[in-house]
Amino acid sequence: MTEDQLTVLIIKYLKENKKGAIEKVIDELQPYDIAQLYRNLPEKHHFKFLVYLSPQQIADLIQELESDLQIEILHRLGIEKSSKVMNLMENDDLADLLSELSVEKIQEYLSTMKIEDSTYVQNLMSYAPETAGGLMTNQFVWIKDDYTIRDAVDKLKAFAEMNHTIYYLYVINDLKELVGVVSYRDLLLGDLHEKISDIMFNRVISVPVDLDQEEVAQLIERYDFVAVPVVDENKKLLGIVTVDDVIDVVIQEANEDIEKLSASGKDIDFYTKATTASFRRLPWLILLLFIGLISGSIISGFEHTLEQFVALVFFMPMIAGMTGNTGTQSLAVVVRGLISHDLDRKTVIGLIARECGVGIIIGLTCGILIALIAFVWLGPIYSIVVGGSLVLTLIIGTLAGTIIPLVLYRFGIDPAIASGPLITTLNDIFSLIVYFSFATAFLAYL
Amino acid sequence: MTEDQLTVLIIKYLKENKKGAIEKVIDELQPYDIAQLYRNLPEKHHFKFLVYLSPQQIADLIQELESDLQIEILHRLGIEKSSKVMNLMENDDLADLLSELSVEKIQEYLSTMKIEDSTYVQNLMSYAPETAGGLMTNQFVWIKDDYTIRDAVDKLKAFAEMNHTIYYLYVINDLKELVGVVSYRDLLLGDLHEKISDIMFNRVISVPVDLDQEEVAQLIERYDFVAVPVVDENKKLLGIVTVDDVIDVVIQEANEDIEKLSASGKDIDFYTKATTASFRRLPWLILLLFIGLISGSIISGFEHTLEQFVALVFFMPMIAGMTGNTGTQSLAVVVRGLISHDLDRKTVIGLIARECGVGIIIGLTCGILIALIAFVWLGPIYSIVVGGSLVLTLIIGTLAGTIIPLVLYRFGIDPAIASGPLITTLNDIFSLIVYFSFATAFLAYL
Repeated sequence: MTEDQLTVLIIKYLKENKKGAIEKVIDELQPYDIAQLYRNLPEKHHFKFLVYLSPQQIADLIQELESDLQIEILHRLGIEKSSKVMNLMENDDLADLLSELSVEKIQEYLSTMKIEDSTYVQNLMSYAPETAGGLMTNQFVWIKDDYTIRDAVDKLKAFAEMNHTIYYLYVINDLKELVGVVSYRDLLLGDLHEKISDIMFNRVISVPVDLDQEEVAQLIERYDFVAVPVVDENKKLLGIVTVDDVIDVVIQEANEDIEKLSASGKDIDFYTKATTASFRRLPWLILLLFIGLISGSIISGFEHTLEQFVALVFFMPMIAGMTGNTGTQSLAVVVRGLISHDLDRKTVIGLIARECGVGIIIGLTCGILIALIAFVWLGPIYSIVVGGSLVLTLIIGTLAGTIIPLVLYRFGIDPAIASGPLITTLNDIFSLIVYFSFATAFLAYL
Repeated sequence: MTEDQLTVLIIKYLKENKKGAIEKVIDELQPYDIAQLYRNLPEKHHFKFLVYLSPQQIADLIQELESDLQIEILHRLGIEKSSKVMNLMENDDLADLLSELSVEKIQEYLSTMKIEDSTYVQNLMSYAPETAGGLMTNQFVWIKDDYTIRDAVDKLKAFAEMNHTIYYLYVINDLKELVGVVSYRDLLLGDLHEKISDIMFNRVISVPVDLDQEEVAQLIERYDFVAVPVVDENKKLLGIVTVDDVIDVVIQEANEDIEKLSASGKDIDFYTKATTASFRRLPWLILLLFIGLISGSIISGFEHTLEQFVALVFFMPMIAGMTGNTGTQSLAVVVRGLISHDLDRKTVIGLIARECGVGIIIGLTCGILIALIAFVWLGPIYSIVVGGSLVLTLIIGTLAGTIIPLVLYRFGIDPAIASGPLITTLNDIFSLIVYFSFATAFLAYL
């Protein structure tokens, strides 16, 4: 059944009040599919649809939705039913949801929740959103190191209703410090009277609660984990970050890199309104407009040369464009490389030397090519001026695209902010200065 | 201990032949760390280091390395020890490794492996690399639907040495069709005499073997799975794709988008040689050089206008740059949006209308701004020509950045190929034609 057919079917059932039929269909669906269905349903059917869902299904649904639809659901459900749903949500998602609400609303909801949950959620909300603390959930099971396997299995049975995205049990000692990890598999394969401390893996890798989410993602990716425990400065276990959150982080970080590289503005998707999208894109464009005017005023300094040799203008777009392009190419290599490499002195020097080599190779190749073309088109003078300038500007452009992001990174600024358009526009300026200076000097010499 | 300290320590132990000490250190490390250590060790120590590793550790190490280092290790180990290591590798990694070797070598290695493994690996190698078949592994455990939990646990014990990145057991019927899935947790919480068919989840989601890896990744991301089973057209279970491979796919696909958007060339990282990097980047640059020359020849058609109004040149970089930038912004939104949205008619029309609105808003804002500046700088004539042109070119640039990738996508071409530089260069041409045509017409009218 396609998404559209499903939507049509559910609308039909809703109109006919076929509760049983709807429940049967919903039961077959994954949370993602229920969320897609909810988005596709006309708004007038939303409330009735929610009535037919169990609190657990609504909790799963909410976790998949955007914040405006989440808040809409809370309003429709009312405070009592909302609280039931919130008690069933994963606490990291719940903290994100609550952070969208007003302080009074937050208090109102928290006061209706179980005390340990509300404390945990309040703690979660105090961590910066892009850190391990902001990503972690309390949907994990801890066991004491003096448990036997039987104790562990009994504890598991008590938590049987908990979301089944759990693959490890974390082991803590009397001080609540994380001391080991046990998989379900270990429990299954061991004997019931064996001690957890004898079968646990005790070189457990954990992350501090304030670690940047990008580094958490890197760690999970490198070690192929499905979850990693989060600890405070005393090694006390606070929560876990699971691999599904990490995939979202990886996608989000890649999107942010692309947004910055293209200066396309934060969080614009297919459904952003034109005014909002324009408003987010304009600051960059206006900045670049003024930088572009700098190019203009530089050129105006060469007005005399231009009046004599108007054909110099013909090559301006090519020279500026090529310099911008090679800079963008270098920039992209640096920005993505930084994701998987640590920058030590040796790497930086090697990278700059490499890009210097690249600049010379592509500079000479393209310079000779354009010199030949300019020679045929306009004769030897233009050939030398255009060819020579292009060699120089391509080397400068390549190095600028490499060094500027590295310098920004060194000073703790995200290098992707040296966005494609910014590098392109700066390279415009460099290249025009080189081109017109070279031309003026050479033509004066003739 | 930092990476460098670790390397120094291991070199010391290697020189002193301290086998026991090395084994103790290695035992504490994750495969990723052993691979980093191996990369950091000077080449002369490589062989000795390998001697101190167990076949399982070498198998883990190889899976983390680049193909040239993998092949180096195989040569160092010799065919007999290599085969031992290969038998312990995950079969998807092994298939990737073998595909780097010559046909004779492949046959030589396969002939020394267990027959069922070599058949599986040969099958794996026949699937396209960027599909579910190319990603899947046979490191999974299947059980029959008529097993009891006790049978399943017994089977698990027999496979106890298998890599522990396994979280589900897949259930098949007599026809080897996939009919359900059971988690370790289900086994732990059930009674030993219960039937698998009674506790299994039978609405198991699987992917066809020829599904594109990007869609496999999307599915795992949407449903928060840690693994998904792969089936053939008869629903026969062939293997599983695990979430760690999916993270690699997500990163790889994002990198490819950025490579294409910046035309930075395939697979260039910090360690690519200058000649290789240049060779990969040059085709784009040379193409763009010729496109840039088209701009030049268009401008040469307006030589007469230029000679009369040389100050028109001052605004060329700004107009061309701004048009390129707005195009790149739109392009980035489309390319990343396509990852999470399906393109139906309604979405496309909505998107184009939105971007049309964006073009008008930013066109008018920037056009009015530049008209004011040009008025102060050079007077009313330039103000009208430059301001009017900018409004038009920004609208055209925004729409080009939206429509070109959508058209490419419609015809089955990856829209990211309409890379930033290509859109920028095309927009250069559009904008210069508009600018000079408008100027020539207006100035002739005066």
